[in-house]
Amino acid sequence: MAHFPFNIRASDGAARCGVLKTSRGDIQTPAFMPVGTAGTVKGLYMDQVKQAGSDIILGNTYHLMLRPGAERVKRLGGLHKFGGWSGPILTDSGGFQVWSLSKLRKMSEEGVEFQSHHDGSKHMLSPERSIEIQADLLGADISMQLDECTEFPSPYEAAAKSMELSLRWGQRSLAAFGERDNQTLFAIVQGSTFPELRRKSAESSVAEMTSGGYGGFAIGGLAVGEGHEAMCETLDVTVPYLPKERPRYLMGVGKPIDLVEAVYRGVDMFDCVIPTRSGRHGQVWTDKGPYNIKKAEFAEDESPLDISFSCPASNDYSKAYIHHLIRSGELLGAMLLSWHNIAYFQDLMARMRTEIANGSFESFVTRFRAGMK
Amino acid sequence: MAHFPFNIRASDGAARCGVLKTSRGDIQTPAFMPVGTAGTVKGLYMDQVKQAGSDIILGNTYHLMLRPGAERVKRLGGLHKFGGWSGPILTDSGGFQVWSLSKLRKMSEEGVEFQSHHDGSKHMLSPERSIEIQADLLGADISMQLDECTEFPSPYEAAAKSMELSLRWGQRSLAAFGERDNQTLFAIVQGSTFPELRRKSAESSVAEMTSGGYGGFAIGGLAVGEGHEAMCETLDVTVPYLPKERPRYLMGVGKPIDLVEAVYRGVDMFDCVIPTRSGRHGQVWTDKGPYNIKKAEFAEDESPLDISFSCPASNDYSKAYIHHLIRSGELLGAMLLSWHNIAYFQDLMARMRTEIANGSFESFVTRFRAGMK
Repeated sequence: MAHFPFNIRASDGAARCGVLKTSRGDIQTPAFMPVGTAGTVKGLYMDQVKQAGSDIILGNTYHLMLRPGAERVKRLGGLHKFGGWSGPILTDSGGFQVWSLSKLRKMSEEGVEFQSHHDGSKHMLSPERSIEIQADLLGADISMQLDECTEFPSPYEAAAKSMELSLRWGQRSLAAFGERDNQTLFAIVQGSTFPELRRKSAESSVAEMTSGGYGGFAIGGLAVGEGHEAMCETLDVTVPYLPKERPRYLMGVGKPIDLVEAVYRGVDMFDCVIPTRSGRHGQVWTDKGPYNIKKAEFAEDESPLDISFSCPASNDYSKAYIHHLIRSGELLGAMLLSWHNIAYFQDLMARMRTEIANGSFESFVTRFRAGMK
Repeated sequence: MAHFPFNIRASDGAARCGVLKTSRGDIQTPAFMPVGTAGTVKGLYMDQVKQAGSDIILGNTYHLMLRPGAERVKRLGGLHKFGGWSGPILTDSGGFQVWSLSKLRKMSEEGVEFQSHHDGSKHMLSPERSIEIQADLLGADISMQLDECTEFPSPYEAAAKSMELSLRWGQRSLAAFGERDNQTLFAIVQGSTFPELRRKSAESSVAEMTSGGYGGFAIGGLAVGEGHEAMCETLDVTVPYLPKERPRYLMGVGKPIDLVEAVYRGVDMFDCVIPTRSGRHGQVWTDKGPYNIKKAEFAEDESPLDISFSCPASNDYSKAYIHHLIRSGELLGAMLLSWHNIAYFQDLMARMRTEIANGSFESFVTRFRAGMK
């Protein structure tokens, strides 16, 4: 299979910054991927997503296969054309949303049968079908193996059994993916919070040589309620077993402090709905954590959200105005805060890349943990 | 009072095109004013509103006095600064929304007491308070007299009584407005669908010489259920009594065919929520009328909404994509259709101005009535 060239420009402790070179453009890492669930990053125009510093976005297989349908997206020219995003796209396998959103799941060795949360229609997701949807129909630059997101908490035996299933689904995903130009497939490491299981999952995925192995390695099954400490501990016992020369992707994470701690542990890629979802509810992200713009104290605050980076949503509107918009349920409030939060997350990634390149990341992490005072 | 210079560049039958020159910029007439209810044109960035061809927007006194509060807007620098719109703004008097939205109204000669539809809080709107809110606190370029929107249908006697009240409130509005630089006040003609009442209301408003009279004349009490024919007939018996040299504004109207017929009868200004409200529900406006993008026939239609004028929302997205966005309840669907519809309405106004200037408006109206085949 094609492996996108991944050039690590600098390292600082376990953290590294680099460039993943896809045929649709370079991805500066550590990278944050805004979530374009159903072919749109909620509330943003794609040029705002790009302008905020996003090199790659994520698309959700589960959502797109149900609506508008993967075959339909293919007939309309693929996901890039359909959604108006010409840069690289990573799609998830659909497994996580089947687990979190769908009704009446029926798991088997073959795959998972489920009912749409929209209309109750029945669907089947197998490793082969997931690859077909991602790589053939949506046309993702980076596809993910189908995995089972292990419930948290899980007893050891159940977590082991689930992880082993994901390994077998990974082998089938690799086989189905085969040889492709300009597209790659990432593995997903599972194993809950058990170090031995994480190690086995990582080592087995790395050792997988069918079709030349995986183009990158994701860490799944986190950000599912285990908490920040357990997440960090799980990274500590997982990342060391992943190859240095391939990108590492922590799925569905997270808050800014999660991103900083994960980069500190050697993670290169992230995706999360937090910037847009929390923005729609009035949350504003900063280095000191989030605050809600609806609070009375902002009713007459004429200062902008943030002038430390360049983004119209952050620079050109008063807190008082956005306070009013969110309190009034106005679309523009959700639009501005989603945009600001995406820009803040991307600025944070850019600052981390600079600190790593400068060899000053350790000090940055210390300051960030202390609220950047 | 200051009357903004109004230069009529060309006439064609009763229709005319001109420029109303305010200190915040020229308004090309016939003009369509997008409604910025609560300090935002729903779903659009102000630069999109401007770029679509809008010279002036409308703000709602009722909404703004309740949230964020008119005194608060004043402390925050006025409505232009608060909402990020540097062009002219016309505010309504609040009367219409009190009539259509509020609870427990209590009418008296003094004014109207009402309860907020948000929280039940009690408020008073008198001619003097309405002017204070519009001209002093919000800082509107064009304020409207307080009027009573006569219920439709109304018996003659009730319509007469209501119209007379609006006349007295108009006198008090004029007195409260006094002498102002760079701000003007418009009268509102009432009288339901009764020609004699419309004539009396118009003539009395025109004759009103307190403080130098009104800077423009609005026709109120239409688009309240009387229907297109009755609206046209009422214009036929009202517009002739309004002075040629002042702008005429048909409040709350309307659909494209209403705009065309009203311009044909000599109206210069309009406002309506139709482009944004119907856009949020999937309606796409065209010369042939509206259609709903949710219809199955658009599921795989790769053509853009409209390429006959320049607007990214109209030119750069496929119908299939917008169909998907609206069906999925995505913010971007509402954003794109609101933007397209505003741009379509403004393009229609621009075409009418050109046709009037060219002396070909009659033929344009004939073609428009026939669906522009």
